[in-house]
Amino acid sequence: MITPVILCNGDDRGLWPSSRPTYPKQFVELSKEENLLGATLRRFKNPGFSAPILATNEVSRFLVEEQVHALGLLDAQIFVEPCQRGTAAAILTASLNLEGNSNALILITQSDHMFSNAKAFHQAVQIGTRAAKDGALVVFGMPPTCPEVTFDYLELSDAPDAYQATKVVGFTQKPTAEQAAKILAGENCLWNTGMFLARVGDLIKVFETFAPDLFKSCREALEGGTRELGFVNLAQGAFEAASDISIEEAIFAKADNIVAVPYRAEWSDLGNWRSSRTALAKDSNGVTKLGAVTAADCQNTLLLSEEENIRLVGVGLRNIAAIATRDAILVADLDHAENVEGVVDTLRRDAVPQAHDYSRFHRPWGWYETLCLADRFQVKRIMVKPGGILSLQSHVHRSEHWVVVSGTARVTIGDEVRLMSENESVFVPLGAVHRLENPGKVPMYLIEVQLGTYLGEDDIVRYEDVYNRD
Amino acid sequence: MITPVILCNGDDRGLWPSSRPTYPKQFVELSKEENLLGATLRRFKNPGFSAPILATNEVSRFLVEEQVHALGLLDAQIFVEPCQRGTAAAILTASLNLEGNSNALILITQSDHMFSNAKAFHQAVQIGTRAAKDGALVVFGMPPTCPEVTFDYLELSDAPDAYQATKVVGFTQKPTAEQAAKILAGENCLWNTGMFLARVGDLIKVFETFAPDLFKSCREALEGGTRELGFVNLAQGAFEAASDISIEEAIFAKADNIVAVPYRAEWSDLGNWRSSRTALAKDSNGVTKLGAVTAADCQNTLLLSEEENIRLVGVGLRNIAAIATRDAILVADLDHAENVEGVVDTLRRDAVPQAHDYSRFHRPWGWYETLCLADRFQVKRIMVKPGGILSLQSHVHRSEHWVVVSGTARVTIGDEVRLMSENESVFVPLGAVHRLENPGKVPMYLIEVQLGTYLGEDDIVRYEDVYNRD
Repeated sequence: MITPVILCNGDDRGLWPSSRPTYPKQFVELSKEENLLGATLRRFKNPGFSAPILATNEVSRFLVEEQVHALGLLDAQIFVEPCQRGTAAAILTASLNLEGNSNALILITQSDHMFSNAKAFHQAVQIGTRAAKDGALVVFGMPPTCPEVTFDYLELSDAPDAYQATKVVGFTQKPTAEQAAKILAGENCLWNTGMFLARVGDLIKVFETFAPDLFKSCREALEGGTRELGFVNLAQGAFEAASDISIEEAIFAKADNIVAVPYRAEWSDLGNWRSSRTALAKDSNGVTKLGAVTAADCQNTLLLSEEENIRLVGVGLRNIAAIATRDAILVADLDHAENVEGVVDTLRRDAVPQAHDYSRFHRPWGWYETLCLADRFQVKRIMVKPGGILSLQSHVHRSEHWVVVSGTARVTIGDEVRLMSENESVFVPLGAVHRLENPGKVPMYLIEVQLGTYLGEDDIVRYEDVYNRD
Repeated sequence: MITPVILCNGDDRGLWPSSRPTYPKQFVELSKEENLLGATLRRFKNPGFSAPILATNEVSRFLVEEQVHALGLLDAQIFVEPCQRGTAAAILTASLNLEGNSNALILITQSDHMFSNAKAFHQAVQIGTRAAKDGALVVFGMPPTCPEVTFDYLELSDAPDAYQATKVVGFTQKPTAEQAAKILAGENCLWNTGMFLARVGDLIKVFETFAPDLFKSCREALEGGTRELGFVNLAQGAFEAASDISIEEAIFAKADNIVAVPYRAEWSDLGNWRSSRTALAKDSNGVTKLGAVTAADCQNTLLLSEEENIRLVGVGLRNIAAIATRDAILVADLDHAENVEGVVDTLRRDAVPQAHDYSRFHRPWGWYETLCLADRFQVKRIMVKPGGILSLQSHVHRSEHWVVVSGTARVTIGDEVRLMSENESVFVPLGAVHRLENPGKVPMYLIEVQLGTYLGEDDIVRYEDVYNRD
């Protein structure tokens, strides 16, 4: 039995505007059927694996929980990191959680990579398992097909072998085109997928030996952590003290028991729109069309519209990615796709809201989105899940009109509690203590019209919250 | 005194998605300060011109009226064409309206072209006036700068002369690149701007002689027309009988008194995004940025976002136009800009709503836009102008919740009439006869939440309408 450790805490900007810090890549539904986290979790719904550990953060925890529940993985543990740290801290914390069983195997994987071939995946894991049981730290690599500069390269003692592990003797992060070509010419190399397999005890030992400060911080973060509502909240001070490094930085140049096993099928880190395109279906002109899209005389182009009410039309395009969301649109030459990250950094510095927020805000009770924001009023669409309960709250600057458009709401205003069904409305006066709940069995949709001099989300006084938010 | 005749009735698709049949090009605010019709009208706010005649259609008439009133042109006449016909019918109808004064001069111009240099414009008109007074039909042309294939070419007896009119001996519509190059090599040519100057009597005579059927239809359409609310509604049957041709098709190969005068400054027909770009400000990389736009490493590219809440980001683009509106986005290679028309035709055939409608629907009383449309509900934002009155109406399939978010409304529901101010709401039950008015001095904004099994605009029974709509 292998315990999967799934990393859901990256700060990815390469798939902007579909991916935002408040709605990261693993939740994006590129196929309109399943998001990347869902696909990752499904790979481990297999007799060989025990319940996964997911490492995530405050922003994503309820989305992660929703996905885990949707797949019936009720024994999964969700580790909530109080701040952004590298993969080393996430992996070590998860390993320490299993410390009592040092011979157990753990498989670390990103939640937002694509492994399209389940058979090849499980085959590689099987080969890796043999090496891990012999005490090796196993990393999985993809045989390179071109001198890609956005990947990391594993250099091996010999040519990679599909049937056994090969020693890793070097590691180069995002090489220049020249370096990449040189590594590739040597043939003894693999692209690093970031997926690891090892015995818990071996992994802990290598961190203890080569990253003792990190080891101390992670142990304290876990031991000082609290467990509530199914989450493991790592202790803030200790976790903040942990160095912000990747597992590769922490141990690769130091440990001598690292080996690599090739995964010989389609893989993509979906790190940018160019690499994502390799994983998507194309027509005979190399055009990928997703959503309400029209292409005329286009070639090698990706057109994606996230909203069915937004029509995206491409005319005469070559080698372009055009991605339309409700509040942000990216049009990029595919050869410049890796520069999107830097542009998003610039947008963040300029405090452009779309660089950070997604137009739909996910909350433990459901979600909301702004339909219209003007000088003194705002219109929101709100969805409350069955059983969802918003905090008991009041506002200093705004009053609210609610219209239930689907499902049933339980509404508290002051001392009065009432049930509201479709086509009923209610007024929440400024200052009134109020609460909204969905006591029903189906999602409840509500239109909220706010009026006031200040309409920011921070005009909220919370009196009580079932999700323990401030 | 010259009477301007301004054509506001084209079916332009080249500037889609900014321009739509329900919101044509002349209303698009490319400069965010003034739309093209406004700029056109302002050119004629000059002592040498009398009140203009505007030829438009049912869809645009209230927008035209609004613009005319905004510029204080209260004597303007607005001709409403009951169906789409070419420029010949529009020009002839306007001429016949001035028939009593056959020596009067009229200047015909499109409402959606750009003449950036007022001095050069008035200078050309002055030269043209001399020729028109001698009985010539004067067409204005632009000295060509390249073998453009989307323009029409005037071929002259001699090289064009800035100080006098030159006889037109040939006319080629949208030539092939080869034809264009050949015409250009001859040097005796101009691009047709579609702007004409002539005496009323001469213009009528040439139509009477060379297009007698058209002449008959237009005379009947005018004589059978009705005048109400400041509009001249041309008679439907007669106007429908008029041939759908341009003035060039009607008279160019036949009349022998056509002369051309050059306009020697920047002109654009704004017929597509490529030609529009010539009229817009660019940075040192040739990049035009309009609205909430970010460009990284782009060259010779046009980025336009119509909405301040929609961020458009271009990365590494060369020779691209990316135009973002709330419900439709175009990304086109500028060398393919003229193909946008054909793509819009395809969208129309496929009944894609964005091919026809603009997200904001203009009405005589103001406008509305859909904020959210779902299975059984719709949220609209409605603006009613001061004095605006919606029809007295009822619906068979929907009830409505209204929240006044700015200004004051007078609301009739059944027998009850009440004033509603900001932050008040009211429920309009299914089937109730109701009316909405703005009795105030400032625009009134209202959020409407509709619920019902059918939410189409055609679920409306009108009992009374101050704008005489069905």
